[in-house]
Amino acid sequence: MSDDALVIFTPSGKRGRFALGTPVLTAARQLGVDLDSVCGGRGICSKCQITPGYGEFPKHGVTVDEDALSEWNAVEDRYKRIRGLPPGRRLGCQAKVLGDVVIDVPPESQVHKQVIRKSATERHIEMDPATHAVYVEVQEPDMHEPSGDFERLKQALAQQWQVDDVVADLSLLRRLQPVLRKGDWKATVVLHKGNHDRATRVLDVFPGFHEAPLLGLAVDLGSTTIAAHLCDLADGKVLASAGLMNPQIRFGEDLMSRVSYAMMNPGGDVEMTRAVREAINSLAATIAKDAGHDASAIYELVLVCNPVMHHLFLGIDPVELGQAPFALALNESLSLDARDLDLGNLNRSARVYVLPCIAGHVGADCAAVALSEEPQKSKDMVLIVDVGTNAEILLGNETRVLACSSPTGPAFEGAQISSGQRAAPGAIERVEIDPVTKEPRFRVIGSDLWSDEPGFAAATASTGITGICGSGIIEAVAEMRLAGLLDARGLIGGPEQTGTARCEPHGRTFGYLLHDSSAEGGPRISVLQGDIRAIQLAKSALYAGARLLMDEMNIDTVDRVTLAGAFGAHISPKHAMVLGMIPDVPLEKVTSAGNAAGTGARIALCNVAARNQIEATVHDIHKVETAIEPRFQEHFVNANAIPHAVDPFPNLHGIVTLPEVSFNPKNSGDDGGRRRRRG
Amino acid sequence: MSDDALVIFTPSGKRGRFALGTPVLTAARQLGVDLDSVCGGRGICSKCQITPGYGEFPKHGVTVDEDALSEWNAVEDRYKRIRGLPPGRRLGCQAKVLGDVVIDVPPESQVHKQVIRKSATERHIEMDPATHAVYVEVQEPDMHEPSGDFERLKQALAQQWQVDDVVADLSLLRRLQPVLRKGDWKATVVLHKGNHDRATRVLDVFPGFHEAPLLGLAVDLGSTTIAAHLCDLADGKVLASAGLMNPQIRFGEDLMSRVSYAMMNPGGDVEMTRAVREAINSLAATIAKDAGHDASAIYELVLVCNPVMHHLFLGIDPVELGQAPFALALNESLSLDARDLDLGNLNRSARVYVLPCIAGHVGADCAAVALSEEPQKSKDMVLIVDVGTNAEILLGNETRVLACSSPTGPAFEGAQISSGQRAAPGAIERVEIDPVTKEPRFRVIGSDLWSDEPGFAAATASTGITGICGSGIIEAVAEMRLAGLLDARGLIGGPEQTGTARCEPHGRTFGYLLHDSSAEGGPRISVLQGDIRAIQLAKSALYAGARLLMDEMNIDTVDRVTLAGAFGAHISPKHAMVLGMIPDVPLEKVTSAGNAAGTGARIALCNVAARNQIEATVHDIHKVETAIEPRFQEHFVNANAIPHAVDPFPNLHGIVTLPEVSFNPKNSGDDGGRRRRRG
Repeated sequence: MSDDALVIFTPSGKRGRFALGTPVLTAARQLGVDLDSVCGGRGICSKCQITPGYGEFPKHGVTVDEDALSEWNAVEDRYKRIRGLPPGRRLGCQAKVLGDVVIDVPPESQVHKQVIRKSATERHIEMDPATHAVYVEVQEPDMHEPSGDFERLKQALAQQWQVDDVVADLSLLRRLQPVLRKGDWKATVVLHKGNHDRATRVLDVFPGFHEAPLLGLAVDLGSTTIAAHLCDLADGKVLASAGLMNPQIRFGEDLMSRVSYAMMNPGGDVEMTRAVREAINSLAATIAKDAGHDASAIYELVLVCNPVMHHLFLGIDPVELGQAPFALALNESLSLDARDLDLGNLNRSARVYVLPCIAGHVGADCAAVALSEEPQKSKDMVLIVDVGTNAEILLGNETRVLACSSPTGPAFEGAQISSGQRAAPGAIERVEIDPVTKEPRFRVIGSDLWSDEPGFAAATASTGITGICGSGIIEAVAEMRLAGLLDARGLIGGPEQTGTARCEPHGRTFGYLLHDSSAEGGPRISVLQGDIRAIQLAKSALYAGARLLMDEMNIDTVDRVTLAGAFGAHISPKHAMVLGMIPDVPLEKVTSAGNAAGTGARIALCNVAARNQIEATVHDIHKVETAIEPRFQEHFVNANAIPHAVDPFPNLHGIVTLPEVSFNPKNSGDDGGRRRRRG
Repeated sequence: MSDDALVIFTPSGKRGRFALGTPVLTAARQLGVDLDSVCGGRGICSKCQITPGYGEFPKHGVTVDEDALSEWNAVEDRYKRIRGLPPGRRLGCQAKVLGDVVIDVPPESQVHKQVIRKSATERHIEMDPATHAVYVEVQEPDMHEPSGDFERLKQALAQQWQVDDVVADLSLLRRLQPVLRKGDWKATVVLHKGNHDRATRVLDVFPGFHEAPLLGLAVDLGSTTIAAHLCDLADGKVLASAGLMNPQIRFGEDLMSRVSYAMMNPGGDVEMTRAVREAINSLAATIAKDAGHDASAIYELVLVCNPVMHHLFLGIDPVELGQAPFALALNESLSLDARDLDLGNLNRSARVYVLPCIAGHVGADCAAVALSEEPQKSKDMVLIVDVGTNAEILLGNETRVLACSSPTGPAFEGAQISSGQRAAPGAIERVEIDPVTKEPRFRVIGSDLWSDEPGFAAATASTGITGICGSGIIEAVAEMRLAGLLDARGLIGGPEQTGTARCEPHGRTFGYLLHDSSAEGGPRISVLQGDIRAIQLAKSALYAGARLLMDEMNIDTVDRVTLAGAFGAHISPKHAMVLGMIPDVPLEKVTSAGNAAGTGARIALCNVAARNQIEATVHDIHKVETAIEPRFQEHFVNANAIPHAVDPFPNLHGIVTLPEVSFNPKNSGDDGGRRRRRG
């Protein structure tokens, strides 16, 4: 009988011979097999669960006997009794190799788990978070060999986990002595090493073995809304998502009005900084509570945002971003202490990573979209549009990537729209208008039923029908155009011209009545001429930005379009193209990436190497400045019509027929949407 | 004629050949000659002043012609006119090499200046501070090549000063944009790189060329007093010194009563932390003002203190230091942000370096004494005693160094003495008692006259005679013993036994009247029996500590003794030996190091390499714990007599005669000083 045995790990296929009696965990570590362990093989944490296979394995050329591993032992017995262990599972630290064996490492026992993203283009995030927990046994103090408790903790981390160069802040050092004594010199330590760090930080310490939830918060700080995902840093799962309005809106609807506020009001930037930090801090508490946790379990926050939000969040006066040459105070990524950003609800040692900005108008949110959508790895030419109060636009392929930002304003988010609201239950999100009867039907968030289907009233009774959100207004405008209620210039026809009483006069212009619940005390929801103008401004800016990048790339068409943004998932490609928001492309080539900026933030949260990757990518992205580019103005004006009248739409014309109608405004007060706003 | 020339620098002796037209500063840099420059050779800062020598230099084998350097130019002219330039001086960045030349670099033009310490054993501190200033010209922003102002500043630092890996905190980033614009893209930048730092920090930035004073504060935080030296980080000069009482005294006179306060009162440690931080913060403001500066010019603070002060300053509950095994929360040195320590009066980006502790009772103050006195480099066996509320004791030579701490209590600092006060104008600091008449004479701080000399009354009129300080009480007790007013057990004789009415009854014991100004409404200053007992306790603890180290070293005598501590400079060696504070040693071998802990702090402030050195030294020092060592108790009890009765004093007996007197206490209430206190 041989005194060693062959051990084969699946799914990795790694194999090696080990002395009989070697614990499976030890064999895995020596082979570099990805098998988790928090307690370091002490039979406490159960992270190293494995499934041994028995019998014939022709593929591996090995036969595994029943006694290939040591017998089920008392530690496993106790663990199974108290915590439960699935059938066939063993603890890798307890089971010892006694013969040739095939060992399967189930996904949940892997450190670098793959998290599947739920999106049109499925992609994996490999878990490689900056924060993880380990269990250590610390040497007791000896007055004859005096050393500090922290130095002995560092010694334990070096010896038991090969983690050297460990530091801690004062708040941790303050708590260390009682915790070590309470745990009888055993402790669970939360460690953090970001991509900028040479040293590993101790973020937290608990007495004994402690299954602390390690949470991270991915925040997409928009001009209008703040969205956050609470993630489990062990497996990348999104435990809760939440959003709230950016409280800075009271200082100005769009970015440039906030910059103006800071310029006109001494200390105005400080007020706005305080407001946004407070909002994120309270959002952290809310979202953690939603997931049944305390916000003190949040050890990391990753932030993406546009440059003005970036500066205001960091406490930097954004005044330079309001005037050429739009100089950022800094563009590189940042790793900071949460306490320096007044995020007191997070763990007191929590760290914050802010993605790099690309340029004065192209922010960390755009970097996050690039991290999520990876245009720099695309074979075909992709246009990525992140629709928000500013649209972040990326165009490129593996050869070259361009980026710009376009001041669409908040109309796409339902703001500055007469019946507009943010996407929330009760908001109209889908609209159809019968081209013959001119009668609408719609769906509201919270119900899958259309408004003309049975049961709709009951299904929406709890929320009511409260307004129209960003995707709803886009569909409404496009459907009005398709139904001949709107001409190519964006003018709404009157009841005589359109043949429907739903086109009602509103002052000197007309509006289309989408829904009337005033009899029940509810609102009358109409699309007014001003709403059309706001959408025209927004879509012209969006298209002009995309077109400018296409000019720079010297192309007239793109291979595919990705719509991103908080409501990107909900925009119908057909309606977007009817409006002329995006260039003509086969409809099946228009996909949605959902909240790509938020996804990028999540990727950076879960995978520390991705931070290096996006920092390198951002360096290579070529930035195009829209604000001073005469062609941007030209494209903007030309894109005003619905759809715009300049670039051809062969794909669109294969699907829809655009009525040739032309209305007159009651007077000349309407300027045809040619006002410009940046924000 | 050759197209290059020989350039010889003095005093370094470095030499090399350079192309004609090479600026002297460039030649110096290429040879590694220590020639300062803040503006990088732009003729702004004048730090690179040099003195060319002309004529024959046989030592160097060179003749220097009058035209060996380029002509005095307009930049030098302007500088001389506006700021002045000593005769014979040139600016190294302006003067160009045109022929063989000898260039002297005056001391004030050297970066690594030598600062002479004023102490018995003169020693030099080489200037190598962590903080220095440089002048840079930053590229303006370009919207077509967008990058942050901070990134362009980093680029300038890399290109113009070869400083890579630069970081800045948020407060600096907040101020950067307006400063760069105000200075028209020229700025003076304060950089800092401590011995723990991989990156260089930007601590401050000023528009244009700015001769900012760069100040550092060396703080010796004692249990009873806090002493600070304000240093110019450019040349190491002490600009001001100041001290104040440690406000923690209200929570307990000695260390152990403060630890008890923390144990008995929840939040008591927080109160004490706040008190000491406030004191240091306000001391910083006061001392800066004294020197005519603002405390915001203080960029660095170096702190030394005992372990309990160390923990309380850092905000760590010192409770573990009050009980065996006296475990420190941490013992290694620390680099921290001043704002995390509530030192808001310092520059907002200021850094704090805390020296390492040696053991639970042997602190960073002892490490600082080792840094200043370097026992590890001594050929002969040196005993270093830092006298304070705790005495830090070091014994050793280049082979081995031992350290311990001994709880002397505050008596040596004038506290717990009936007429005691801290060393300040008006305090009696020297005492002589005539052995025949038993009449005293004394000197007070603020006057060089003895009390029996003409003019003494006038000289002390402004301060009065207010009490007796630490060195004064030591001399008084020793003189009382030499005059036969005190027996070997420490009992004061009555008037009949001593033959002087100055030995007055005070309750059941006697006291010796040193000075009576009660007729003028002033105090009666006496040395009471309780004072003798306090001094006996203190000196027994001190001697027992020293003796314990000698046991450990296996020696009975030492080669020399260094007295350190805030009042170490003022203790008379003879009187210290009469008391039995220190082992017998030839009197000329007893030297004073002044405030060695404070000096150590200054060295660490001025020389960043010294921090590495002391961190390594501390690792090698062997710590002896007095608190649990039975022999310490034994030595303590045996050291109670004056002088103690156990170890011989051949050197002392060669100088003084100790009267063989013996008094009885009026009753048995006096316990002979055998009480013990730690603190």
